[in-house]
Order: sequence, then structure tokens, then C-alpha cells
Amino acid sequence: MEVYLDNSATTRVLPGVKDLMVEAMEAEYGNPSSLHKKGVEAERYIKDAKGRIAKTLKVQDKEIYFTSGGTESNNLALIGCAMANKRSGMHLITTCIEHASVLNPMHYLEEQGFSVTYLPVDGNGRVKLDALEEAIREDTILVSVMYVNNEIGAVEPIDEIAALIKKKKPDILFHVDAIQAYGKMVIRPKRQGIDLLSVSGHKIHGPKGVGFLYVDDKVKIRPILFGGGQQKGMRSGTENVPGIAGLGLAAWEAYRDHEDKINHLYQLKESFVEGIEHLEGTKINGLTGRESAPHVVSVSFDGVRSEVLLHALEDKGIYVSAGSACSSNHPAISSTLKSIGVRKELLDSTIRFSFGMENTMEEIAYTIEMLRELLPMLRRYRRG
Amino acid sequence: MEVYLDNSATTRVLPGVKDLMVEAMEAEYGNPSSLHKKGVEAERYIKDAKGRIAKTLKVQDKEIYFTSGGTESNNLALIGCAMANKRSGMHLITTCIEHASVLNPMHYLEEQGFSVTYLPVDGNGRVKLDALEEAIREDTILVSVMYVNNEIGAVEPIDEIAALIKKKKPDILFHVDAIQAYGKMVIRPKRQGIDLLSVSGHKIHGPKGVGFLYVDDKVKIRPILFGGGQQKGMRSGTENVPGIAGLGLAAWEAYRDHEDKINHLYQLKESFVEGIEHLEGTKINGLTGRESAPHVVSVSFDGVRSEVLLHALEDKGIYVSAGSACSSNHPAISSTLKSIGVRKELLDSTIRFSFGMENTMEEIAYTIEMLRELLPMLRRYRRG
Repeated sequence: MEVYLDNSATTRVLPGVKDLMVEAMEAEYGNPSSLHKKGVEAERYIKDAKGRIAKTLKVQDKEIYFTSGGTESNNLALIGCAMANKRSGMHLITTCIEHASVLNPMHYLEEQGFSVTYLPVDGNGRVKLDALEEAIREDTILVSVMYVNNEIGAVEPIDEIAALIKKKKPDILFHVDAIQAYGKMVIRPKRQGIDLLSVSGHKIHGPKGVGFLYVDDKVKIRPILFGGGQQKGMRSGTENVPGIAGLGLAAWEAYRDHEDKINHLYQLKESFVEGIEHLEGTKINGLTGRESAPHVVSVSFDGVRSEVLLHALEDKGIYVSAGSACSSNHPAISSTLKSIGVRKELLDSTIRFSFGMENTMEEIAYTIEMLRELLPMLRRYRRG
Repeated sequence: MEVYLDNSATTRVLPGVKDLMVEAMEAEYGNPSSLHKKGVEAERYIKDAKGRIAKTLKVQDKEIYFTSGGTESNNLALIGCAMANKRSGMHLITTCIEHASVLNPMHYLEEQGFSVTYLPVDGNGRVKLDALEEAIREDTILVSVMYVNNEIGAVEPIDEIAALIKKKKPDILFHVDAIQAYGKMVIRPKRQGIDLLSVSGHKIHGPKGVGFLYVDDKVKIRPILFGGGQQKGMRSGTENVPGIAGLGLAAWEAYRDHEDKINHLYQLKESFVEGIEHLEGTKINGLTGRESAPHVVSVSFDGVRSEVLLHALEDKGIYVSAGSACSSNHPAISSTLKSIGVRKELLDSTIRFSFGMENTMEEIAYTIEMLRELLPMLRRYRRG
């Protein structure tokens, strides 16, 4: 049996998405900037994708900008907003559990003279609102908080954060890294007070190498890549038409029969959590109910090194992640796990299981069964 | 008959490239950063692509970095080198006929305090070497010159430029935008003295949304996108595995039976040029022999607006470009044409024809025939 439980790292491309991409590569291969028919046809794929995505968020088509993926979306949001608004202030706020594609642009901005406050989180990985309230200053221009944490599946209090910003200093821009949330949560930027939202294609059964950034019409932002002026000058470079078309369809599919899909994920998660709780020497990090994301469970295993367990599971056909696979090949110890207070000896004994639409209850049962078999063996082996 | 003569704008993806991409989307869809088998398999596609590309240039695999396309490659080369080396000087040199994805990063760097010299070109669009010699200063750190001009197909004197740099100030970095040249010219960065080289996938029958930057091992450069530290920290973001795999194969194919392919392109070009020369009121911009690129011909048509001719040709199934289609939908008057001294009244009467491997002699004959039919009509219409 092959059980892919690493859907937060990446997902399989949907067959329909692949078909649409092939069409845009072979038949309708024009450059959207070309003035002739082939260009116009290519342009239509972009227009369709933009329309589909905008509908899932209930925003305007023109507020969607395509990028090369989540990392570029986060970089554009943070560096683009900071640079465009620095006359209003040079203070930024984020959290200590963000993805590297938020933390590292923040470090870059610190080099450029900005100052950044990194908010702490509680034991379940949720941002402390009182810390945010204290952190907001006269010169704060931007707050960036992820929607769903990639390592433990914590859902951040986005609405409360937006309300707090509105109360304390309404002109602060609010960026949300929704790379692990889009497709799973119902997101309404206009109603929720989100000004910028980052999304990646390959986390939602769409293609790698493409993503988008939602930018509210009123936001002042400047590009970070310069060239031919495509996408109203906000993102130069010939558009990745097949990728954009694929992303548009994947987005649409993610929100089709959405409730059923999310219920399926929560069922998988609940069954998995129940199984884990019956295994000795395990601890689930963060919340497990419907207030947490439907697709991520982080488990610490007493006395078993995560890399050893990862490869033992791999031998059984089960694919999981040690920490976050979104980082480079040699991941440092997770900052999220440290931030929520996971005991030092468990930091290197933690596995992330992440579910996708294609997983089945049978696969979950098989995974639990294999863990039951492997854990005592690996612990014995370690002591030996 | 459908005749696609806009191959400098973009090209059709090769069937084999498409097949490889589908494989990497459906079967081997892992995240290369994952530690399990699916990650290792995905990583192998990247390794293979890197190896194939490095062989076409006779450089080391580790000197190839993947990007989201030509625009990002140029931005990374220019901004990355300028920022990493500004302690050695803040003067940059380029030409007045570069693509917007070089000119606009240069404008950005001027905002950041760098000074930039824009070299003039001769009537055939070739950089004036004496102007370069004069421009080099004590604080010059980078020279950027395109290999083949995208609008008229001029081949720049890359070897002579490199020799001049070596003579005057050997530590200057030499960046070459090879987006229109790669696949057409035999390029040997090590022998030619090229330190950085930009390439785009979709100009060589590879995918859109992916490209690479060759960076000589000794070059000091810093990233422009920050995140998970992929590609040795030089380009963060989950790698676009299908796109990279496709690019690797397209590169390989471009240089397989290379001489035959280039001879085919030159035959198309020679036949086209001969046909044009027999038409009244036409003027070819730049050189036409083997000292020019094999795939681009720029023609000015007396008394016919380019957009009108473009759409008249489109009605006959012939797809061409007015100026350069790599820019946004509303191209400004071409700076290349102005720089080589095209008469004012012809600037807006110029069409770019660009050939690809898939074009045939029959298509060229048909295109000339249609031009012979259309031109007198369009000119009459204009006077009417």
C-alpha cells in the first residue's frame, strides 16, 4: 500500500488540471502579449483563471496577481509593501512561527533599516493578541500573520487580529500567508479585513512554480521584479499561461463541494488522532478539533528520532515529513515547535502527517497499524 | 494554412517535453525537499535537468540556478551582483537596446544610488566597442550585454567585449542576456569570458514560467527572493520540478543535431530575405547574413502601419509581431529601432518575423506571396 501523508509539502496535480495545462502548452501556446489570435487565446486562459480565483475569495478579478509560487507571493507582499510605504513608517509586525518565506524577507527588510517585532504564540501555536496590541506603534505599517501554521496546523485568529488593527491603527496593512489555508478554509478578504493574501498552486493539487497574491485595490505596493510591464507592471515576465490556467482550475476544484471535502479531511484527521491517542509515548502538538486545520497533525514520539521513523514508515509505503519539508534539504530544528514549548528531547522526535482529498480511511487505519508495529521495535533498537 | 512566425515571442512546447512534464506532475509529484522516496525522485529530475543544461554550455552542474523565467534571471543577475559587489564600486554598463527585463532593473538600481552607462550601437545594432572602452571606470563592477537582440536579430560582439573587459579591468563581471541566443548560438561561457548568462524556457520549445541563470562559481551574488533556502539559498521556493525537467529536455533537444537545425533556420531566413527584397517599399533592419541570428528578420514597410499589416497577415493565418511582443500589451515605440537610426516614419511600420524549427520553406513562400498580395492593397486603402 502506498499512503501519501505529506500533502502539506506538495500534492499530486489533478488530472483535469494536467489536461488543461497540456492544452495550453500544445494547442494554445501563444504569448499573451502578442497582438494576434494566438496571443488573445493565451490571454483568455489568464482571464479565466483570474475570474475563477477571484470568485473563491469574493474579490475583484483585477486584485489577483500571478507569481512563481508562495515564496514569491510572500516576498512581493512584504518587500513590495514595505518599500512602497516606508515614508509612513518603518515598523513591521509578524510572528515567531511564520514560514521561512516570511521570516527571511523580514530579515532582509531589517537589513534595509526596518524594525520588526516577532510576536509570541501560546502553547497551541496561536498568536497572543495582547502581545499584538502592545506591539502596534505609530510607525507600524504592516502586520503579517499566517492563516494556518504549516507544522502543527494551528489556525490563527485572523478576524480578531484584523479587528485589533482596525481599532488601534486602521491604515496598517494586513498580509496573510494563506499557503496552507487556501482551499481548506473559507476566506473572505473583504469581510475579514485582509489586505494581501498569498497562495501557492502546488499545495492545492495545482502545479508547482505558480501562485498568486491577492492585493486589495487600495493597497500601495511596488514590484520586486522589473521588466516588460506585464500584469499592470506589478509582475513583469511572460505569464506562465499553462501554470496559471492549472492554478485557476485547481482553485475552482478546491472550493467545489467544499463542505464535503473538508468533512472528509476532518474525518481522516479525527480517526488518525484517535488512533495516535491509543499509542503509548505519543503526544499531539496543538489542537485537534474543528478549531484546528483539517489536514495537519503533528505528533511527537517519545524515544524515536523523527528521521528514523520517517524512513521506517517509508519502508511501509507511508510518506510523511519530519518538521516542515518546505525548507531546504537540511532543516534546522523547527521554530514553531520550540515556540509552542515542545520539550527539547521531543523536538527531534516529531513527525508531521498531512492529509489530502485523495486519502482514505483505510489508509489511515493502515498507518496507525504500522505505527503500532514499528514504534516498540524502533524504541528497542534505540536502547540496544 | 497556419504559419507561426512569432517564435521570438514564444514557442510551442515539444511533445517529449510535455510528456516529461506530465510524468513529473502525475507520477513523480513529490517535493524535492522531502526526505522520503517521493522527494528523492523529484530531486532527480532537477539533477538531470541541471546536468543536461550544464553540458550544452560546458560548465559545472552547480553553476546552474533555476528561476521562474528570463525576467527573473536578468533581475537576479543584475540586482544580485550589484548588491553583492557594491563595496567595489557602483557603476554599471549596459546598452541602449537591451530588453526591458535588463533596462528596468537598471533603472531600479539607479534609484538605489548606482550609476549606469547606456552604450550606443551602430546602424546594425551592434555595440560600439570604443564606447565601451571609454565607459569603463575604476568603479565599474558589471557589464551587461545581450547576445542576440530580440527585435532585429543583431548578434553582439560578446567575445570582443569580454576581451576588452579583461584588458581594461579584469574583475568586472560580465552578464549576458542570452534569452534570444540560447539554442541558436554555440555558447561557451568559460572560453568566452561570460560570468553570468540568462536563459528562458519558452523561447526554446520548453515551458513558460521557468528559466535558468548560469553563475560562474567565482561570482559573488546575493539572492533577490528569500525563504526556505532551496538551491543553496540562491533561489528559495519549492522548485518547479515539471518545468525544470521540461526545460532540461528542451535545452538538450535544442543542441541535438544543432548544425542541421541552424542550417534549416538560415535557409528559411535567406529565402525570406530574398523574397522581401523583391517586394517594393520594404527595408530590412540590420544584417541578414550568417553574422546575424538565424531566426529573426525585422522589416519596415513603407506606408503601412504595422498593426494593420499584422492583422491582415493574421487573416491569412500568419502570426507575426509588431516590435517586440515580450513587452506588455501596449508596446512603446521600440528603442532598438530608434537606436539603429530607423527613419521616424518607419518606426510604426515595422514587423518582426521570427522562425522556428517547425517552420517550412513552403510556409515562407506562402508568407511572401501573401505580402505581395496585401501590401499594394493596404497602401491603396491608406491613401483612400
